Amino acid sequence: MNGMLVMQSDFGLSDGAVAAMCGVAMSVDENLKIFHLTHDIPPFDTFEASYRLMQAVPYWPAGTVFVTVVDPGVGSTRKSIVAKTRLGQYIVTPDNGSLSHISRAVGIESVRVISEKNRRQNSEASYTFHGRDIFSYTAARLASGKIRYEEIGEETDVKDLVLFAGLHPEVSETRIRGVIETLDVRFGSLWTNISRQDFAAMDVSDGENLDVSVYHDRTRLYHSFVPFKHTFADVEIGEPLLYINSMEYIGLALNQGNFARAYNIGTREPWYIVLEKISQ
Amino acid sequence: MNGMLVMQSDFGLSDGAVAAMCGVAMSVDENLKIFHLTHDIPPFDTFEASYRLMQAVPYWPAGTVFVTVVDPGVGSTRKSIVAKTRLGQYIVTPDNGSLSHISRAVGIESVRVISEKNRRQNSEASYTFHGRDIFSYTAARLASGKIRYEEIGEETDVKDLVLFAGLHPEVSETRIRGVIETLDVRFGSLWTNISRQDFAAMDVSDGENLDVSVYHDRTRLYHSFVPFKHTFADVEIGEPLLYINSMEYIGLALNQGNFARAYNIGTREPWYIVLEKISQ
Amino acid sequence: MNGMLVMQSDFGLSDGAVAAMCGVAMSVDENLKIFHLTHDIPPFDTFEASYRLMQAVPYWPAGTVFVTVVDPGVGSTRKSIVAKTRLGQYIVTPDNGSLSHISRAVGIESVRVISEKNRRQNSEASYTFHGRDIFSYTAARLASGKIRYEEIGEETDVKDLVLFAGLHPEVSETRIRGVIETLDVRFGSLWTNISRQDFAAMDVSDGENLDVSVYHDRTRLYHSFVPFKHTFADVEIGEPLLYINSMEYIGLALNQGNFARAYNIGTREPWYIVLEKISQ
Repeated sequence: MNGMLVMQSDFGLSDGAVAAMCGVAMSVDENLKIFHLTHDIPPFDTFEASYRLMQAVPYWPAGTVFVTVVDPGVGSTRKSIVAKTRLGQYIVTPDNGSLSHISRAVGIESVRVISEKNRRQNSEASYTFHGRDIFSYTAARLASGKIRYEEIGEETDVKDLVLFAGLHPEVSETRIRGVIETLDVRFGSLWTNISRQDFAAMDVSDGENLDVSVYHDRTRLYHSFVPFKHTFADVEIGEPLLYINSMEYIGLALNQGNFARAYNIGTREPWYIVLEKISQ
Repeated sequence: MNGMLVMQSDFGLSDGAVAAMCGVAMSVDENLKIFHLTHDIPPFDTFEASYRLMQAVPYWPAGTVFVTVVDPGVGSTRKSIVAKTRLGQYIVTPDNGSLSHISRAVGIESVRVISEKNRRQNSEASYTFHGRDIFSYTAARLASGKIRYEEIGEETDVKDLVLFAGLHPEVSETRIRGVIETLDVRFGSLWTNISRQDFAAMDVSDGENLDVSVYHDRTRLYHSFVPFKHTFADVEIGEPLLYINSMEYIGLALNQGNFARAYNIGTREPWYIVLEKISQ
Repeated sequence: MNGMLVMQSDFGLSDGAVAAMCGVAMSVDENLKIFHLTHDIPPFDTFEASYRLMQAVPYWPAGTVFVTVVDPGVGSTRKSIVAKTRLGQYIVTPDNGSLSHISRAVGIESVRVISEKNRRQNSEASYTFHGRDIFSYTAARLASGKIRYEEIGEETDVKDLVLFAGLHPEVSETRIRGVIETLDVRFGSLWTNISRQDFAAMDVSDGENLDVSVYHDRTRLYHSFVPFKHTFADVEIGEPLLYINSMEYIGLALNQGNFARAYNIGTREPWYIVLEKISQ
């Protein structure tokens, strides 16, 4: 453990909830270093929580502890777990799909269920803020070395993790059909679930045009030939491009424009993208 | 002092004001650890500032220094003070009601008026940013041990603190009338000023139904029988419950729904909640 | 170097981009202390990026490293640079105008172009996130002392910096014409480019009334006699005042009101303010 704790939630930063979680963590160990991934996850949106973890976790040193509290089932029977990624980071989370994308992109090495003993003292009267009383407290104890990973609770099978379906595209040598998973929020580029490795199956050269369609269910809302380029500035301002985004998945953008707004494109199933080779 | 400094303001995070306060603090002592409660307090809203302190301060170690800058009277004769809570945290603030809730929930042990000597050098030409030039500077000096609490300035009587009225409910064995103080912002649950101890006067059992009304002044906008439960998942999705919230006050919520939006409920006087025992 | 790294961007805090930059920095050196100026710069708005740096940089200790990523030209031929201010802070930025205001208010001592060798390992497949792969990485290496300023790359002439035009007002002994550069966002006061030194040319006494006009191009949208005062509380609630703001430029405000909203005033050219002495 390296003493770093990174928090994510759907609490927003307008009230005192996140600061209460920080206070609990710093009460565990004053030497912890606390960081924030985002607290702007839309309420209860575990898919978004999952996606944002993929965007940040891989860039942190091994031994960093993440805690993510997007928890529509607080107080229900859903499990509270700690997962260890194949890169050596730890993620404290309800078992509700939040590990789907990091599982796909990095892989989960092992999972332990948080034992009920790992609960902040004097928190028995409050049943609604596990983020403070269980998740943040446990994450802080783990990050500071007050408790070892093995002491968190019993190991459970990685295969039993709750994961979202539909995380992988359909790939052939001439056609890939993927899902638009999210937007590059402020800039409106479409980020798909087609990884650089998936894309390699079509053997596309730099600058090659592909036949690109965007569908909402069966309705085609965009259709054009779009070049595969390195970066935005490789096309004129306002022109479209396919590119490998910062997480090494295929993105579709307008240089200095907002693709999603230009064509009214949304995200997640049934928003699909289809890439096809153009026959010579 | 433990070297931890927690900031709150109504400045937002879209400009450089908070970062200027951090810079001043880190110029006082590079070993300080800076955290943020929230900077999203609505402009000049000292009631909200007061409430958010209650939500966070109690969870931080003794010796933590808070600085809260919501200050409609900047440049006026309102006092600048440092309060020490009964749990040993310090709060640097204008004396304008911002200590009301922490005073109720935790208690204030003592208060000192900030002497005019405690002002950042070379800040004489600017009279409008006490948050940076006086509050943050003084808080940093206190948190880092450059100045002792006793050196802040003269002690003043805790009884002279400016506090909001109406902070306590009317309590009997069969009926409690309280105020809806705030919302669990993103989730829309109503948070009242009825504490767990106040509520105990009615001797309500787990699962017992109460007769619950919400009023705006004399107009009743919600009336139903609602069970007292531990947590959201104890009722069906969409059903109402009374529960003890994370600060140990009574809350009124819809499981996975938004109570305030469902019934158009607002906060603060004259928004009242009335809980009554149902006669057998 | 003091190990402090302060980040600014137009990425917002709703996704994982900023956290990825933090992870890269903490992977360079786990002893770094990371702070945030703002990540709410409107997309591609390099003027706003420039202004916000002026608001915060001067208050940080010498040896602090800032990294600002507002970069409409990512992937183009615009230079990536590190500037050293006359106060000893460092700013890592694309060379796109972001240093205009800090150059005016503090001065730039020297500039170096970031050599292509300063790039995070294994980031070759991604061309669109220089904030993470080049700027944050380089800033972290500089802040931690892993690389000296002299090793960043070749020095370039300060005179060749890309700067905005129109940064200085027209000043005489009886009249000053300036630009409204920004608003005190949450409070609506107008902040001009007329510095305390510029203003001194008119030799205005405390409480003296000036003839004040606000123009959009040639259209006058506000005209009144306004007193020059120290601070808001020196006039009645709702009354206007001219004052020296927290960065020592002239501001125009309504005490506890919102000047910009009251008179529908915008910012930047062609939004002008004209101050005139009243003949006795």
